Amino acid sequence: MEPGTARIAVDLLGGDDAPAVVVDGALRAMRADPDLHLLLVGPTEVADELIADLDPAQRVRVAVRPVRDVVGMADHPSAARKESTVRAAVTAVRDGTADAMVSAGATGATVTAAVLGLGRWPEIRQPALVATLPAVAGPVVLLDVGGSLEPRPATLARHAVLGAAYAAVAHSIPAPRVGLLSVGTEAGKGDRVRRATDPLLAAERLPAGARYIGLVEGYDVTLGARADVVVTDGFTGNVLLKAIEGAYAMAGGPPAEGGAPRAAALLGVAGTVVVCHGSARAGDVASGIALAAHLWRRRATDLVSALLDGDAATDRANRSTDTEVRTS
Amino acid sequence: MEPGTARIAVDLLGGDDAPAVVVDGALRAMRADPDLHLLLVGPTEVADELIADLDPAQRVRVAVRPVRDVVGMADHPSAARKESTVRAAVTAVRDGTADAMVSAGATGATVTAAVLGLGRWPEIRQPALVATLPAVAGPVVLLDVGGSLEPRPATLARHAVLGAAYAAVAHSIPAPRVGLLSVGTEAGKGDRVRRATDPLLAAERLPAGARYIGLVEGYDVTLGARADVVVTDGFTGNVLLKAIEGAYAMAGGPPAEGGAPRAAALLGVAGTVVVCHGSARAGDVASGIALAAHLWRRRATDLVSALLDGDAATDRANRSTDTEVRTS
Repeated sequence: MEPGTARIAVDLLGGDDAPAVVVDGALRAMRADPDLHLLLVGPTEVADELIADLDPAQRVRVAVRPVRDVVGMADHPSAARKESTVRAAVTAVRDGTADAMVSAGATGATVTAAVLGLGRWPEIRQPALVATLPAVAGPVVLLDVGGSLEPRPATLARHAVLGAAYAAVAHSIPAPRVGLLSVGTEAGKGDRVRRATDPLLAAERLPAGARYIGLVEGYDVTLGARADVVVTDGFTGNVLLKAIEGAYAMAGGPPAEGGAPRAAALLGVAGTVVVCHGSARAGDVASGIALAAHLWRRRATDLVSALLDGDAATDRANRSTDTEVRTS
Repeated sequence: MEPGTARIAVDLLGGDDAPAVVVDGALRAMRADPDLHLLLVGPTEVADELIADLDPAQRVRVAVRPVRDVVGMADHPSAARKESTVRAAVTAVRDGTADAMVSAGATGATVTAAVLGLGRWPEIRQPALVATLPAVAGPVVLLDVGGSLEPRPATLARHAVLGAAYAAVAHSIPAPRVGLLSVGTEAGKGDRVRRATDPLLAAERLPAGARYIGLVEGYDVTLGARADVVVTDGFTGNVLLKAIEGAYAMAGGPPAEGGAPRAAALLGVAGTVVVCHGSARAGDVASGIALAAHLWRRRATDLVSALLDGDAATDRANRSTDTEVRTS
């Protein structure tokens, strides 16, 4: 764990089994990380229940943002109440009251709240959910795992840029190898989206010294031998991640390197946002909070954004040079 | 193993490491199954090499279909030579010289050769590649795993019918539960194709007492708790199968129930065709031959076809009754 205070906003009502598993997960995270501060976003009575389980030294690391306006409105559907807590958590990040936020609520609602509340980075039409899978040779960054189900080729190419920057910043992977997930490794393999994306990626200038290695297959997501970053659509990525989790359960437990991740970072919005699966258990919520704290301590969001900006700035400079050459 | 002679045509030149691994795999299959007969399709010198490793009692169970016309033409690209062996193997099934065929050559070439040489069943536009994954509660039939990368909703609905019939016939699963793979289980989850297919499947009459249980997730492919048949597009199915195989390798080996399958049945053509992965090893080729023999001994192709015909006949009867009711 890297040093430094991290103030994480936690959506107490997000997730199928909220608030119980969120409270339990937040308590675990507090105990594991002495520099962690939590902003509990939700009903005061839920926050009080959590605080009651802390000792006095831990209590000073907890603050509460009550979501009063909808809590207690018994006629409000549960989904609407949960969305209001995720919006309040996003607001806390925007205000600077929290450094990052975590929700196990509906992914679509979290992405929408983050886009509206924090704003997208320039040239990012669709933010990406990024999951990191442990493999033998090191972590594999998989994106998208559920943010954009039907991305256009240009979106997949942008996600490759995001993934490369994230691999370098969040996981210290030097010169990441980026692959496009398909049904074979030979050029031309795959559906229309893959065939259209492959040449775009070959032409894309990637940040952090990353290079595009071409098409990769399902094996490469789990074994990690060929690529550090694997780019796919959110439908395939989501299905894949859950199938891998099931495979590890079938095989009697995750490999020594670690199992399938249960938390993903949302990349492409101006703030640090971590999404846990809706069926998250307490350990998953705790790992989501730990991921948010890790990303904040690495200043991952700012550094990824800066790599993209540098990219865009170099692009502008290149275009300007091209123009000069042409007009000379 | 069920009793009865099975005569399997083997494409000696199909696969990245053919003919060596095909020869090795065929030898293993011969030794494991005393009622297995092989028709070796390919260059005579390769067949002779295989036969030399058999004892006299085994030799009577082997025949050769030499593929003379292109073998020895050194200027022919390797791919064209391999495709000619798969066409000859298909012809052997059509002629009745073989009961079924196996190839580890390019999937697309095998599907094309099978469709052209054997013909499609009525109302099947796109045949499906079907793989069976072992799970705790019994096998899970996954289709498509690479035959049709971008199926329309109507094709996915037909594949559900094929998968249900196959689960009943090939794996003796009573009243199979059929699920549509998506990113969540609630209705409306998924991309456009899934949202359009879900109501089609809900309205589809499935054979063999099967019922549609709605959307399922990646977990359900590996754990098998909710569905016996999982329907998806060939892109997702192919990527998934390989990722699961990689996950089992990562976890130190497949679960006790068995690992990810390395051979798939082609359903929807008028003959028994098994496809092995292009990177098949000898054990994979042997398991492909064993699958072909199993399907033949169960008369799976005929029985699946009959279930579909029964289905179509009942549909016609229902339509006719409807018309009578309307005109009365």
